[in-house]
Amino acid sequence: MKKVDHIGIAVKDLQLALPYYTEVLQLPLLGIEEVPSQNVTVAFLDAGNIKLELLEPIGEEGAVAKFIEKRGEGMHHIAFGVTSIQERMEELKAKGVQLLQDQPKQGAGGAAVAFMHPKASFGVLYELCDKGEK
Amino acid sequence: MKKVDHIGIAVKDLQLALPYYTEVLQLPLLGIEEVPSQNVTVAFLDAGNIKLELLEPIGEEGAVAKFIEKRGEGMHHIAFGVTSIQERMEELKAKGVQLLQDQPKQGAGGAAVAFMHPKASFGVLYELCDKGEK
Repeated sequence: MKKVDHIGIAVKDLQLALPYYTEVLQLPLLGIEEVPSQNVTVAFLDAGNIKLELLEPIGEEGAVAKFIEKRGEGMHHIAFGVTSIQERMEELKAKGVQLLQDQPKQGAGGAAVAFMHPKASFGVLYELCDKGEK
Repeated sequence: MKKVDHIGIAVKDLQLALPYYTEVLQLPLLGIEEVPSQNVTVAFLDAGNIKLELLEPIGEEGAVAKFIEKRGEGMHHIAFGVTSIQERMEELKAKGVQLLQDQPKQGAGGAAVAFMHPKASFGVLYELCDKGEK
């Protein structure tokens, strides 16, 4: 849990939101990818020391679609870069933190990811993101 | 707009939220400060490459108090570190971006800060934060 990898931001339509990020804020677009396990298409932008991950829902059933329906577009999660995600998950569970899944899922870029329950985190959805780096 | 300085997170009670950040997530506490211009007490935590800024409302009239009343605790804003904030503000205005104030306000740590209207930013409240560094 040494640094923040990215901030996830829910948007209704990537093609509408991207020009704001690339032209107004002038952040370089790093890539666009479908992440079927999360029902989203994501675009990563280079914000210098971290990335911004724009999340557009695929369909109406995923967590991001429901987030937008309930709260509108906006900040969705904060992802910490970790190593040995299974060990980090066990440590958090041992501290009484509720996780949203028992096993990591495959996230963008093939990373192993897991989410902590926002009720444990005073309203913030935190992600653990393990890219397999040592 | 070269990098993210901090993520602002609205909490009802710093003393309740801080142990989660310092003991569970094990992020070092950098300091606590009242920011009268924003009606908040803030605590900065070191998340490695960026800071997390926990915002506890002072009174019931400030923007953070109203945010919590409406949306509950959670992510509030993303702050970009900038230099020459007045010039950055003029550039954004020239691009048609609505700002929440015409002149920078004094933020935490004596920084000059200004906010962009979240309607311009697809639901995200972005802050410009100028610490006077060259």
